[in-house]
Amino acid sequence: MPEDELIAAIVQGMPQGDALVPTGDDAAVLPLTAPRVVVSTDVLVEGRHFRRDWSSGADVGWRSITQNAADILAMGAVPVSFVGSIVLPGDVPAHWAIAVGQGMAEACTWIASATGVPCGVVGGDVSSGNQVSVSVTALGDLAGEAVLRSGARPGDVVVHAGTLGHSAAGLALLSAGLSPDGDGAAERCIGTYRRPTPPVEVLDATQRLHALMDVSDGLLRDAGRMAKRSGVAIDFDDLAGLVDTEVYVVGQMLGVDPVPWVAGGGEDHGLLGTCAPGEVPEGFRVIGRVLEGEPSVTVLGQAPSGVTGWDHFSG
Amino acid sequence: MPEDELIAAIVQGMPQGDALVPTGDDAAVLPLTAPRVVVSTDVLVEGRHFRRDWSSGADVGWRSITQNAADILAMGAVPVSFVGSIVLPGDVPAHWAIAVGQGMAEACTWIASATGVPCGVVGGDVSSGNQVSVSVTALGDLAGEAVLRSGARPGDVVVHAGTLGHSAAGLALLSAGLSPDGDGAAERCIGTYRRPTPPVEVLDATQRLHALMDVSDGLLRDAGRMAKRSGVAIDFDDLAGLVDTEVYVVGQMLGVDPVPWVAGGGEDHGLLGTCAPGEVPEGFRVIGRVLEGEPSVTVLGQAPSGVTGWDHFSG
Repeated sequence: MPEDELIAAIVQGMPQGDALVPTGDDAAVLPLTAPRVVVSTDVLVEGRHFRRDWSSGADVGWRSITQNAADILAMGAVPVSFVGSIVLPGDVPAHWAIAVGQGMAEACTWIASATGVPCGVVGGDVSSGNQVSVSVTALGDLAGEAVLRSGARPGDVVVHAGTLGHSAAGLALLSAGLSPDGDGAAERCIGTYRRPTPPVEVLDATQRLHALMDVSDGLLRDAGRMAKRSGVAIDFDDLAGLVDTEVYVVGQMLGVDPVPWVAGGGEDHGLLGTCAPGEVPEGFRVIGRVLEGEPSVTVLGQAPSGVTGWDHFSG
Repeated sequence: MPEDELIAAIVQGMPQGDALVPTGDDAAVLPLTAPRVVVSTDVLVEGRHFRRDWSSGADVGWRSITQNAADILAMGAVPVSFVGSIVLPGDVPAHWAIAVGQGMAEACTWIASATGVPCGVVGGDVSSGNQVSVSVTALGDLAGEAVLRSGARPGDVVVHAGTLGHSAAGLALLSAGLSPDGDGAAERCIGTYRRPTPPVEVLDATQRLHALMDVSDGLLRDAGRMAKRSGVAIDFDDLAGLVDTEVYVVGQMLGVDPVPWVAGGGEDHGLLGTCAPGEVPEGFRVIGRVLEGEPSVTVLGQAPSGVTGWDHFSG
């Protein structure tokens, strides 16, 4: 299929949010509530970030949108618009790329339903290449103040919203060749791996946090970044207490300790924040404390490797 | 080099424009003059859009920024910010990717010097992959009204700013194995191929145009898109009159007719517009007329293939 036709098929029916000038001109024009914009970008590469036998085109499209949306949420802003580029080898069928677009559209509809703000994909590019990749840029509308990684204060509690370890548990199942059908714990973890659902519903509460970031590379590693930026020490509660039932069940199925999935699994795209102890917003759970001291991350006061079995920690 | 270190090396010294929150958090925050933003994206893939033996890393970085900036200019907006993703095979040296970043920084500095508005690269991503690709998203600040492709009116003159055919002439030289050193016509055309220089200096004049677009796929093809969007016919003057001396000289060197480079060569990223006959802004030259009629593109009243030798026209 020629690129012009493929682009037309992908654009067909794509939500455009509130765009003043939608896709189709040299560039799109988007309205904002204030004269400023929030922007972030990520690329997903086949074999590195996804496998086509583990994720459908629509799954990859969903993930490309939601993981970028999580970065916008992590600033306390509303994801309002996306642009994306797809690189596609000649042997990948056009319907795979069209499905990427459909997954992007589904994710936009899901995000808009949670924020109440229209959201769409307003531009893009398609090119041939040797390897599938999907790069997406997200734009956010910031009504309040940006919530930064650097705002954690000693005395704060550390809070988290969203799933933890579900995506890693799902990936572990797929890596073990297990891909059950149904509605059990395994299926739901695989579902989170394929289609992460960042906690869009806590958006309004983010303005009450002192610091905030997206957990994309693992809880302990990302907490290390927050500790460094804020100049504080972060001490987590017992991570075993953060193993949700579904993640526990998958650990049992595979005969492995699920705590490393919670400690080091990325790509659930939950939100990690800090706030005053008496001001924990709905939707967040307390998972640790912010302390004075050199930037560091501990679990129950000990270095992570000793308590989690996970020794890949590097700030 | 680990990705974290590579990203740090690329970010080092990267201009940040007027960013309220620069690169380094989950997302950047940018100020705008009005509550709206202009956005466009493009991907460059090795072997498809560039060759590493023909373009340096810095050339690819420059081009990734300027070709996206041209899309922003083509809306009548000021390019103020970019984000970019680089996919890099393991056998490409880190210094090549660092050079991409340096070329991006140089392009931002060049754009800012022409617009008077600070401009930078405020975010990005780096991933390993099988093939080099660079995808960039540009953000623009729109003080006036967006100038669309759909605004051409019968009675308008067709105008152009920037180079025409220089990039195609440079590519033809490289394809012929010719890459002379020096400061002649050949070197300057190759220079335009490697580092296109869209006519940023005409930005203020764009608000006086009725229609505007970036010429990225060739003058006749892009004019066909404008004709279709505007519901008009576009008739060009003699294209031989648009062959600049440098392009003519390269045609002589290679023993070929240079008119097809003007008619069909993309990637000079000039600006194609229309305006009232008495209101041609400085920096633009008149190259045709807008007529009533079914959307079409002609040259001196004839179908392009008969007069240009270029028969690849497809609206």
